[in-house]
Amino acid sequence: MSATPGPIALACRFDAQEWAEWLPALAAALPGDTLVRAGEPDHDPATVEIAIVANPPAGALQRYPRLRLVQSLWAGVDRLLADPTVPAGLPIVRMVDPAMNAAMAETALWAVLMLHRGFHTYARQQHDGVWRQHPQRRADEVRIGVLGQGQMGGAVSARLRALGYRVTGWRRGEPLGPVLADSEVLINLLPLTPDTRSLIDTAVLRQLPRGAALVNLARGAHVVDADLLAALDDGHLGHAVLDVFHQEPLPAGHRYWTHPAVTVLPHVAAQTDARSAARIVAQHLAAWRRGEPLVHQVDRRTGY
Amino acid sequence: MSATPGPIALACRFDAQEWAEWLPALAAALPGDTLVRAGEPDHDPATVEIAIVANPPAGALQRYPRLRLVQSLWAGVDRLLADPTVPAGLPIVRMVDPAMNAAMAETALWAVLMLHRGFHTYARQQHDGVWRQHPQRRADEVRIGVLGQGQMGGAVSARLRALGYRVTGWRRGEPLGPVLADSEVLINLLPLTPDTRSLIDTAVLRQLPRGAALVNLARGAHVVDADLLAALDDGHLGHAVLDVFHQEPLPAGHRYWTHPAVTVLPHVAAQTDARSAARIVAQHLAAWRRGEPLVHQVDRRTGY
Repeated sequence: MSATPGPIALACRFDAQEWAEWLPALAAALPGDTLVRAGEPDHDPATVEIAIVANPPAGALQRYPRLRLVQSLWAGVDRLLADPTVPAGLPIVRMVDPAMNAAMAETALWAVLMLHRGFHTYARQQHDGVWRQHPQRRADEVRIGVLGQGQMGGAVSARLRALGYRVTGWRRGEPLGPVLADSEVLINLLPLTPDTRSLIDTAVLRQLPRGAALVNLARGAHVVDADLLAALDDGHLGHAVLDVFHQEPLPAGHRYWTHPAVTVLPHVAAQTDARSAARIVAQHLAAWRRGEPLVHQVDRRTGY
Repeated sequence: MSATPGPIALACRFDAQEWAEWLPALAAALPGDTLVRAGEPDHDPATVEIAIVANPPAGALQRYPRLRLVQSLWAGVDRLLADPTVPAGLPIVRMVDPAMNAAMAETALWAVLMLHRGFHTYARQQHDGVWRQHPQRRADEVRIGVLGQGQMGGAVSARLRALGYRVTGWRRGEPLGPVLADSEVLINLLPLTPDTRSLIDTAVLRQLPRGAALVNLARGAHVVDADLLAALDDGHLGHAVLDVFHQEPLPAGHRYWTHPAVTVLPHVAAQTDARSAARIVAQHLAAWRRGEPLVHQVDRRTGY
């Protein structure tokens, strides 16, 4: 570590609005540092030891020969790990932010309440001008499966249990079949890794009870779209709430947009809060500079 | 109290499905009692001391000269109190059921999450094929007002606070203006009484901050419909979630059905759960027969 810290490179695929939100937040949280956008000409790449990244384009970190630490602003680092130009030994820290966990829990809670109490059905009835009451079940009669029991899966499970839902969490390595057979609502909060890519396919979906719902808040590539559409079309699944897609924005004309049993969200289940995330980045960097062990460092073997 | 209890009259405006749900539940909870439907010919009305009621037609209790106790299956007793043939001294007990409070809290929570996180906006965007993310606020930045702090208002407020929302509860007799000025979402859970009828009018709605939302889960007659529609039409209010209406079912052609800023629910915010409610009825009747004081007896002066 140099006596005078070099600039911190920001390798972030941001639009103008995102830069306007993040740059002041990071500058306020890191008042002693110089922040430079990756690729800006007026700094020497060889002086950069730290990069703060958000979905950087493949190869974006190659320009920094002395890079020692990468801090992601996003919780998901699957794109970063898929970039072969990122050195294998370079420490990558992912974002773990209680504010983001809370936002994810809000989205999951809203989706479960909608599916449990039938508010999506009542929305269709309003559209059709139909007044019809459906039987009401208690929360403790509704069985929820949560795939992933990390920061987000844990927060979601805790909030659902507090409302009385019967929640079964699933971690990789455990048998999946019993969880699927008992899940009227299956919530996906897994990290995207080679192990979990395309996990949610026909074999998995057909093990859910008839009429079950899928809530995908993780990554679009966890789901085999054709399999999900087939299960929705033939009524095995009752509904899907999808926040993430193979291609984002979801292309015009994709069947998800207009499928009556699909709720499309534009990847908003848990947006990173720039203010709290910038403070967390500053804490991580200060601890690293003091020589303390990194928390939330990505394990390259598991992929998260 | 007679040595051999007379039959309990059921004065309930039920359809066949409701009878099929309630009759077995009540029979199971009251195994030592004879249950007769009001108006059935094969019992002597003079032997009836207890009536279990659910929205009975006006005058329905007049046939029982020795009636000593009325137990309502519904939480709201406004129709019963409006019936001039119900003797003023006759004790009326209303339904207070934790399962119903939980159901009401679920509906309120779903509505607040939808309004806070903009899921109603994303539903419109899906309909229009639009992918657009909107800024995300933390729950502790969202100010909620809850009118009514009884069993249901209290349960709703507690659940919202547990998720981090800034909740102000309001009881009648307190100044209303400061609550309104600070409520981005106003949730109505008041009992319907002469004091609260038409409470939510232009004067009240215009004190809410611009863009605020109304969630009415209590009674349609709390709201002046023309005033609410005017506030929605000119954009002072951003949205309304309405579960209750002056006339139910909501008549075909009513503007609420098709208003883009109105969510219509068919009076399903908290349906009474026959199983738990029947057990509560049995507990009330047993305590009354032992000569214990009634809990949840309606106060005729306040109307709830």
